[in-house]
Amino acid sequence: MNSDRMEQIVSLAKRRGFIWQGSDVYGGMRGTWDYGPLGVALKHKIMQEWWSFWVEERSDMYGVDAAIIMNPKVWQASGHVATFSDPLVEDLKTGERYRADHLLKDSGVNAEGLSNEQLTAKIKEYGVKSPNGNELSEVRNFNMMFQTNVGAVVNDNSVAYLRPETAQGIFTNYKNVVDSFYPDLPFGIAQQGKAFRNEISPRDFVFRSREFEQMEIEYFVNPNNWQQDFDSLLSSTYKFLTEKMGLNANDIHELDVPEEDRAHYSKKTIDIEFDYPIGREELMGIAYRTDFDLSNIARVSGKNMEYVDKNSKEKFIPHVIEPSFGVERLLMAILSTAYTEVQEDGKTRTYLKFPDNLAPISIIVAPLLKNKPALVEKAKEVYNQLRKKYNNVSLDMSGKIGKVYAKADEIGVPKVVVIDFDTIEKDGQVSVRNRDDASQIRQKADEI
Amino acid sequence: MNSDRMEQIVSLAKRRGFIWQGSDVYGGMRGTWDYGPLGVALKHKIMQEWWSFWVEERSDMYGVDAAIIMNPKVWQASGHVATFSDPLVEDLKTGERYRADHLLKDSGVNAEGLSNEQLTAKIKEYGVKSPNGNELSEVRNFNMMFQTNVGAVVNDNSVAYLRPETAQGIFTNYKNVVDSFYPDLPFGIAQQGKAFRNEISPRDFVFRSREFEQMEIEYFVNPNNWQQDFDSLLSSTYKFLTEKMGLNANDIHELDVPEEDRAHYSKKTIDIEFDYPIGREELMGIAYRTDFDLSNIARVSGKNMEYVDKNSKEKFIPHVIEPSFGVERLLMAILSTAYTEVQEDGKTRTYLKFPDNLAPISIIVAPLLKNKPALVEKAKEVYNQLRKKYNNVSLDMSGKIGKVYAKADEIGVPKVVVIDFDTIEKDGQVSVRNRDDASQIRQKADEI
Repeated sequence: MNSDRMEQIVSLAKRRGFIWQGSDVYGGMRGTWDYGPLGVALKHKIMQEWWSFWVEERSDMYGVDAAIIMNPKVWQASGHVATFSDPLVEDLKTGERYRADHLLKDSGVNAEGLSNEQLTAKIKEYGVKSPNGNELSEVRNFNMMFQTNVGAVVNDNSVAYLRPETAQGIFTNYKNVVDSFYPDLPFGIAQQGKAFRNEISPRDFVFRSREFEQMEIEYFVNPNNWQQDFDSLLSSTYKFLTEKMGLNANDIHELDVPEEDRAHYSKKTIDIEFDYPIGREELMGIAYRTDFDLSNIARVSGKNMEYVDKNSKEKFIPHVIEPSFGVERLLMAILSTAYTEVQEDGKTRTYLKFPDNLAPISIIVAPLLKNKPALVEKAKEVYNQLRKKYNNVSLDMSGKIGKVYAKADEIGVPKVVVIDFDTIEKDGQVSVRNRDDASQIRQKADEI
Repeated sequence: MNSDRMEQIVSLAKRRGFIWQGSDVYGGMRGTWDYGPLGVALKHKIMQEWWSFWVEERSDMYGVDAAIIMNPKVWQASGHVATFSDPLVEDLKTGERYRADHLLKDSGVNAEGLSNEQLTAKIKEYGVKSPNGNELSEVRNFNMMFQTNVGAVVNDNSVAYLRPETAQGIFTNYKNVVDSFYPDLPFGIAQQGKAFRNEISPRDFVFRSREFEQMEIEYFVNPNNWQQDFDSLLSSTYKFLTEKMGLNANDIHELDVPEEDRAHYSKKTIDIEFDYPIGREELMGIAYRTDFDLSNIARVSGKNMEYVDKNSKEKFIPHVIEPSFGVERLLMAILSTAYTEVQEDGKTRTYLKFPDNLAPISIIVAPLLKNKPALVEKAKEVYNQLRKKYNNVSLDMSGKIGKVYAKADEIGVPKVVVIDFDTIEKDGQVSVRNRDDASQIRQKADEI
């Protein structure tokens, strides 16, 4: 755990317009985050790369975009109404509430996979107190789904939930996709979108928030082949994380989740963990969910969820492999991979070494001085020329090149193009400054 | 009003996997819609075109992505808690609830801009009954914001709302953008994202639903120049609607909203209406909101919302012009513009004539027969070749060319490439069938 490094990243993200506390003009809204211009650009790039890699470049994937507010039967069938809960414990003096497992973890006690009774016992055994130093209540369940009422009447019949995962919006459309597209097995349905969880104690920047963006795939397979399809999706996941997201393979760790920690219906789950500045934590997961979800839907809806094999005419409910990604956890992994401090000439230079495909801004164009019309005009010309090739070129007219370099470094711009007197008086070449080694070369603008 | 045409479009959208009723495996969830593979692709294209046109291709726009759940003070300051309501009327026998203005409109009575008392009087005057033929109650206000509770305690202090518009997520970040990016005035902040309204009677397909996707810009201007900036945004809007969204100029109508129908703080509002199959209805709007929102935020938050002019050092709260788009209303305008029936050889041919930049699939490649390995192999080869150029090429191996053409027409694919015996035995040319006139030409695959 490197909390100093984490603080530096959070501070840079705020100062430079990547990520701000949600509603911060009103003192904030705990567990929510707002993305500024650079954060939105980075988020878009992550989501577009994911969609290209997993959906557009494959012929076995179908995209959907389901509503956030779904029929409440969805969450009864899925088990979320009954069991989607966190262990809650109360400060007996202030009434403030906390996650029991987090309090134990913060006290250095491993609390994974424990029941409420076991958590209560551990709290007693180790004498764990609330952050205010007070006694704690017994541990009880707290359902994490946000609840609302739909329609003009507020009563039990109008209760609905904000989806706590995008997965169920995929399962409920499995039959629609099969009926409209007749896909061959195996095939996947993919969805990107918001999910909401009423976390008792949101924390660790965007890592655990109350509103977040998921990217999930439910991959429908013949149960006889699940292991093969699981391995293939796992291997694609490594390719995506290292080649598209630019993460270092040695920061990525595979955790084969032991049976007692898996959901009861899952026969195998691999968690991909990442070495964040806050420690090694879950980045994404791949779970073999068997036919648990489709069978529940068949039972509760009364509709037939069987797939008919096109050749053998065999009928069966497909089994499911689920690769599940969160945009914010990827974004945090990318930010912490990119964050670099180097000592140069006795000073610390800080830069974000984003891979080129993820950099929110590719090139900044700047005139050496702001009060020389010839430089300013030429800068505008080069800027307009580069904009035709790249959709994320920026123009900086401040004429303070040292500050432009410092800003470009902090927001992770790979190249800064400076227009100086040689450009207009001699060879038309511009100075191209490289973010990662601070080197400068001279080059024709149209060769960048 | 052409309800038959509307029904045809809704039916095609469902059958072909554009748009399904939300949660329809459980009998649906009123006012919500799920997007299938083709609907998601179309939605993505609309949103990407909008983001390119309004944000990436301009140097005066900043993107943000704020949380859906905001601090409730946002909605107190904006006036939504007090006044964001619809006129509700109750069937005195069944207890079912309806929008009073909709019932009047359906009875042919103009109900725009009327108070609850006036609506109640009109209902009596024209003897309007509920759809079940029963007497109606007096008209009262119904707040359209979905309410939930955030945190582990359910009480008045934990109440929060799902945002009913994306606009406030922009206003609350105005100061963040100014502090991180020092923009010159005028500048805009843009946001795309979900908004939620608890409509009493959602209707007209995706036109009025409870969950929808907005694309909004708040454009901050010097109050002395508002008219000029308003006109410039209006002119860009026409360009966007006709050139990027492919709408016909003669389906678009400008309504200069009269003072009595405008929000009290707006000095000018233009509604852009569109000739939908359901009639002429609002597609988007541009409103001059003065300094209403920023002044409210300054008052409630105590923070300074003034902008300091870089040259004159003059301080003032900027005024705002708001162009506000809805993805679903655009999508419905695009679908109804695209939907075409022509008589050919005594039969009706139905196709969606999407502009090339919006077509969910650009090209389908198909072998003439499915049981000829040479044709199948060549089709795969051409498919892989075209995929390198376009990210939305599809392969159809059914070998039933008549059906492939019919499907391609109904999902609006501009070109179908057929691999036949001449392709492999003679010149390597493929047959390219054009959607709009059903003509076929022979062409080299790499010249498509």
